[in-house]
Amino acid sequence: MSPRRILIVGGSDAGTAAALSARSTDPDCAIDVLMEDRFPNFSVCGLPFLLSGEVTGWKELAHRTEEDFAGRRITLHKESQAVSIRHEHQELIAETVGGERLFGYDRLVIATGAEAVTPKIAGADLDGVHRVRTMDDGLAVLDRIESTSPESTIIVGGGYVGVELADAFRHRGIGVTLVESTEQPLKTFDPELSALIARELESHEVRLLARTRVERIEAADSGRRKLRVVGTEGFDLMADLVILCVGVRPRTALADGLGCDRGQAGAIRVNRRLETTVDGVFAAGDCVETWHRLLERPAFLPLGTTAHKQGAVAGANAAGGAVEFAGTLGTQVVKVFDLAAGRTGLTGNEAVHEGFDARTTEIVTPDHKAYYPGARPLHIRLTGDARDGRLLGAQIVGDYRAAVAKRLDVMAAALFNRLKVAEILDLDLSYTPPLGSPWDPWQAAARAWCDERSAGQATRPTQK
Amino acid sequence: MSPRRILIVGGSDAGTAAALSARSTDPDCAIDVLMEDRFPNFSVCGLPFLLSGEVTGWKELAHRTEEDFAGRRITLHKESQAVSIRHEHQELIAETVGGERLFGYDRLVIATGAEAVTPKIAGADLDGVHRVRTMDDGLAVLDRIESTSPESTIIVGGGYVGVELADAFRHRGIGVTLVESTEQPLKTFDPELSALIARELESHEVRLLARTRVERIEAADSGRRKLRVVGTEGFDLMADLVILCVGVRPRTALADGLGCDRGQAGAIRVNRRLETTVDGVFAAGDCVETWHRLLERPAFLPLGTTAHKQGAVAGANAAGGAVEFAGTLGTQVVKVFDLAAGRTGLTGNEAVHEGFDARTTEIVTPDHKAYYPGARPLHIRLTGDARDGRLLGAQIVGDYRAAVAKRLDVMAAALFNRLKVAEILDLDLSYTPPLGSPWDPWQAAARAWCDERSAGQATRPTQK
Repeated sequence: MSPRRILIVGGSDAGTAAALSARSTDPDCAIDVLMEDRFPNFSVCGLPFLLSGEVTGWKELAHRTEEDFAGRRITLHKESQAVSIRHEHQELIAETVGGERLFGYDRLVIATGAEAVTPKIAGADLDGVHRVRTMDDGLAVLDRIESTSPESTIIVGGGYVGVELADAFRHRGIGVTLVESTEQPLKTFDPELSALIARELESHEVRLLARTRVERIEAADSGRRKLRVVGTEGFDLMADLVILCVGVRPRTALADGLGCDRGQAGAIRVNRRLETTVDGVFAAGDCVETWHRLLERPAFLPLGTTAHKQGAVAGANAAGGAVEFAGTLGTQVVKVFDLAAGRTGLTGNEAVHEGFDARTTEIVTPDHKAYYPGARPLHIRLTGDARDGRLLGAQIVGDYRAAVAKRLDVMAAALFNRLKVAEILDLDLSYTPPLGSPWDPWQAAARAWCDERSAGQATRPTQK
Repeated sequence: MSPRRILIVGGSDAGTAAALSARSTDPDCAIDVLMEDRFPNFSVCGLPFLLSGEVTGWKELAHRTEEDFAGRRITLHKESQAVSIRHEHQELIAETVGGERLFGYDRLVIATGAEAVTPKIAGADLDGVHRVRTMDDGLAVLDRIESTSPESTIIVGGGYVGVELADAFRHRGIGVTLVESTEQPLKTFDPELSALIARELESHEVRLLARTRVERIEAADSGRRKLRVVGTEGFDLMADLVILCVGVRPRTALADGLGCDRGQAGAIRVNRRLETTVDGVFAAGDCVETWHRLLERPAFLPLGTTAHKQGAVAGANAAGGAVEFAGTLGTQVVKVFDLAAGRTGLTGNEAVHEGFDARTTEIVTPDHKAYYPGARPLHIRLTGDARDGRLLGAQIVGDYRAAVAKRLDVMAAALFNRLKVAEILDLDLSYTPPLGSPWDPWQAAARAWCDERSAGQATRPTQK
């Protein structure tokens, strides 16, 4: 008999996907979703665009309505926090708006997500110092902006969220200083490409400070309330607003209480069915380690797309199904002002670090035939293993209107299928002069990669 | 010992690719390319954009310069036409600018392309009636436009070239009537999608006449020289310019003279090494039949992208290599005013015709999260085989700025790897709200396809 009561803890991407998938798998089971806040399945990835003003109301960020859940007989419990669990009795006790409440379950799905890391520095809890991880975080920053009209902000951390927020604040006309402890922002790209993002940020008047570590934040009274941020390299700057985005860590307290093992980066250990090490308990999303399809081992890569897919697998299996997560390739894309930057698989540096005989080729090529007006340069890097010719990763930076994200997805599909670099040349990709070239840019890069490996033996022509 | 003398007849995409590939394979062999016109490796696909005025000079259409050929020691013979061949002596005689000349060869590559079909109607050869197939064709139309400033044109045939030319002439402000003998233009799409193209044409003041066959063209003197076109359905219209684009047929005279077998649609029969049935003779491009990767049999699909790939294979093998053509999927994209329309694999109708248990799902979905400004609808159709779940084809129509061409290529990569429809859901595709959705539109379509097949058994959630 299939499980009758499925309890899901967490109502963001993974939790929602689990609920919907469980319902598809079993039309009859009871599905309860506990969520700490009041924002069921909101797009936290959309917060930078709410803060920029491009999205005009926070309610627009809802992926779906509460009626959608009700229509599928999924019971949402907002503002409800798990406080204790007796797994041997299949009971969870939660603090809800209406007081403490007991939830029985046959299968439990943990989708507690990740939380923003707060750096251990003095002043991280001062008024005006924010994180942007949850809907509540984002609304607090929005309220701050609207109520205090800040003129300057310091963003600590140059990852995806940091550069998106730099764009967002500049969009509002707020001065931005971005402080990054490593060589340059977006260190998840090879430095040749993250340098292009750094240049894009600077050309939009983002003041960029690399190799700088923030050491403390002070409240400084100078007419209007300001914050003073002090760091290495003599960094000492005042701002009206400080955003800390130095990474996330998995939220595992509930899983820990159940005795679930932890794996990569302290995330909950799961197999490809998204089962934890405790019987009857599944977990999915930013709180778990992720099967990496190319490395063929778990990794910690908290991403929305992965959370959706894992949630769907966990929910189906919790409801009595038998499906496996196909794995992640770490595919990511970010828009920064007029550029988009994307990666899938491994970067050149990562591939070397992982022990591959990794060789990377970079080319710059127009997005369509140069004779047709409006061609824009694409900077693309292709990484393959010199030993067996296998494709290991692809990176691309170019004007966001030049189909950068979907170009990347062509390589994501190639990597999913474990193609060799040379096989990219065989793909029957589309061509019309206003939108492409007879040999796609990835094919031009693949040819260059092959030519560099076996000078004189390549079988495909070069082409402009 | 590898062949020392490679003779290539034809200097467009396939011939050029063959020459370059032969040189990569063998740095020492002699490579001669005979071409009838004076336009080595020009982009005839670019002619509509020359005629529209978007490309300002015809020389811009060169894929590469003559110096590129010279630098690779590839000898071009422009305005040279093969007149006879003695294969047993490995000799070809050509009429060249400097008179008759004999070319010896060890391997011959035939890349004679296809020619525009001229419909068997009276007046098809009148002054002012044109085809747009070769560079000379295109330059003649351009000259006609510039010297006579036509105000009206009738385009006969609503294939890719016909709709591109309709766009081009409207771009110049010339009135356009497009006459198509079938139900609607772009019949290589399922009618649900070609209807969108028809509407786009009409919204840009292209007068569209479907189910109408042109029967004769007359010279009609009415002040300035006009042409009168008469057809079925009472069609009777005057215009300054008539363009015939009713298809192409392979040019096989040289191959016929050698005794090469012909295959699909009368095109030269070749194997996957691009060998003809005559020893030592290769052929590639629009004059040959094409291995269809999905149908696993030859087809006639004359396309520039395929010509490049086949040429590369033929050239490599002619120079002593041993490579195979991976096959076509019939991937095509066309830009028509503000829309782009693309297809890869089989349409729903084609798949049914080929005997698959083909089921097609159509969805309309925004190109990125609707909350971010500027989202545009994409109309996509996914076709799969209900028996084994295999993906058979994908079609997409949407604003050309919505990455339509590269979205299509993601499915081309999926088809290349023989994915099942359900596996599309496992692809790790990119996401950021301004450029996509957590579940890509293809994934939304794949989920809909799966849900329709196995109601209640799907394991993936629906999502808005």
